[in-house]
Amino acid sequence: MPELRKDPIIGRWVIISTERGKRPTDFHSTIKKKEPKLCPFCNSNESSTPPEVYAIRQNGSKPNSPGWSLRVVPNKFPALIIEGDLNREGVGIFDKMNGTGAHEVIIETPDHMKDLVDLEDEDFENVIRAYRDRILELRNDSRFKYILVFKNQGEAAGASLEHSHSQLIATPILPKRVMEELSGSEKYYNYKERCIYCDIIKQELNDNVRIVTSNDMFVALEPFASRFPFETWILPQFHESSFETIAEESIGKLVSILRETLKRISAALNNPPYNLMIHTSPLDNRYPKEYHWHIEIIPKLVRVAGFEWGTGFYINPTIPEDAAKFLKEVEI
Amino acid sequence: MPELRKDPIIGRWVIISTERGKRPTDFHSTIKKKEPKLCPFCNSNESSTPPEVYAIRQNGSKPNSPGWSLRVVPNKFPALIIEGDLNREGVGIFDKMNGTGAHEVIIETPDHMKDLVDLEDEDFENVIRAYRDRILELRNDSRFKYILVFKNQGEAAGASLEHSHSQLIATPILPKRVMEELSGSEKYYNYKERCIYCDIIKQELNDNVRIVTSNDMFVALEPFASRFPFETWILPQFHESSFETIAEESIGKLVSILRETLKRISAALNNPPYNLMIHTSPLDNRYPKEYHWHIEIIPKLVRVAGFEWGTGFYINPTIPEDAAKFLKEVEI
Repeated sequence: MPELRKDPIIGRWVIISTERGKRPTDFHSTIKKKEPKLCPFCNSNESSTPPEVYAIRQNGSKPNSPGWSLRVVPNKFPALIIEGDLNREGVGIFDKMNGTGAHEVIIETPDHMKDLVDLEDEDFENVIRAYRDRILELRNDSRFKYILVFKNQGEAAGASLEHSHSQLIATPILPKRVMEELSGSEKYYNYKERCIYCDIIKQELNDNVRIVTSNDMFVALEPFASRFPFETWILPQFHESSFETIAEESIGKLVSILRETLKRISAALNNPPYNLMIHTSPLDNRYPKEYHWHIEIIPKLVRVAGFEWGTGFYINPTIPEDAAKFLKEVEI
Repeated sequence: MPELRKDPIIGRWVIISTERGKRPTDFHSTIKKKEPKLCPFCNSNESSTPPEVYAIRQNGSKPNSPGWSLRVVPNKFPALIIEGDLNREGVGIFDKMNGTGAHEVIIETPDHMKDLVDLEDEDFENVIRAYRDRILELRNDSRFKYILVFKNQGEAAGASLEHSHSQLIATPILPKRVMEELSGSEKYYNYKERCIYCDIIKQELNDNVRIVTSNDMFVALEPFASRFPFETWILPQFHESSFETIAEESIGKLVSILRETLKRISAALNNPPYNLMIHTSPLDNRYPKEYHWHIEIIPKLVRVAGFEWGTGFYINPTIPEDAAKFLKEVEI
């Protein structure tokens, strides 16, 4: 019997399809092997990107030259551009404004052949620090309301270059999905005077059927109402609304659970393409007690078709408890 | 300069990316040519599907045997199943219920090689009548709150069989996307005492920059805040909240504009995969004055990546006015 499950935060129902019950080996998505080549993100090819806005460099190396372990550069083909005012305007019944914002690329390593999980601890931690530092810098720009950090790994997940990188977009409006999470967690807080994410974590640790792994600061789990097979969230176990205020001593713990989780997904599902997103508070941090930052990882295993677009509700062919078990037990 | 545009109904912002400004020839998605073969939806293969629940048949032909021009059968691998009660249940903080519902397949033609647009007028009209009649039948089941009719054309759009077919899913809950549209149009109605879709149609016909085609009953247009390149909506020009009460004399007009629109999309974009969905009122029709049924067609041309999943807002690389012009001017 299929099951309908409701996401307690935003109220989205999903169909957990038992008839179609899919195991990891039923999915055939995989990232094609990299070939060594010189791409715009490679070491010694720094002039192929716009000038860097941030970098981790060896002492003495000059900006936009070799000697870096991480670079952040503006996207060459930005979805939003940094110059200009918003110019909000009505067009009859419609509303529009200028596409002002920031769109940056975090080049995680100079080595074309390495993926995020292959990085040494320090380099991986520097990726997290770069996310944090860029948000802390960009939040000074009063035009921006939200900053999304995300990573598309593999062409099928939307990556146009295979060299390991993440992206960051600062937007002048609150994205709809974020508003839904905020409003859901606000409603819960008004009713219970507790953070809904904290309550979920407590129940999940107690039930222990959807947990993938945990350490003393973070937990990785398959959400009860997962939209996608092997959808995985990583949350700080203790209440924290904004990612960018992450304590220095938490960064190592985050890298450790993130690396383990990505490795488990890769081992169980044969290195699938994936999307990773950091969900954090809006820049004005209006919901310090209500909201709880977290990372969402969505392996790209199924197609989103007409039913999903038409209704906004998803058919997930893998039971989240089964997915958690697979990920927990897979050898890495 | 990219532009941010807001959907007036559900308040979703999209980025219309001019930097990436894509023309029809920039998209490479295309449906692979069909090979003649005997599939479960083919004539004389009726025993490969569950028994039909509806059919258009020649006089004298027996159910589940040849002699039909259209069949409706339960989906062999249903996302929701017809038997059983809902059994709403709490699991700590979570909510779930049984996956009760209907999942049917409308086989649009016995001919494996024909697509929807290739059908004779009468057969195409019968597809619309089948949608209508199945909704009218299933709405008698008090467990169901919503019925979505949709069509996935092409493997990349989620079709698992290439033989031309549509699907219908009856759900025991109101899907989230539907709730958003209802609540948006209700808010507008409460404020203006007018239907927001009627107002949009009026402005669009007047501006005449996003209209693809129209006849005296329907209009096809690119929405102002299109999420996807060449996203196209077909709406009745006169207020009507529910698809299934469509007048018999409107069916021919709907087939005519739908056929023309699909042909224009196919000609402009080299026969791309697409999703088509009918958005209609919930079965209890609580919003007769506020809501306005319509068809949404989304050619599958781009990938939805981390940014879209993370924020629920979309980057559309084609300006809707350009898309309308291409579709309007393409030779069919």
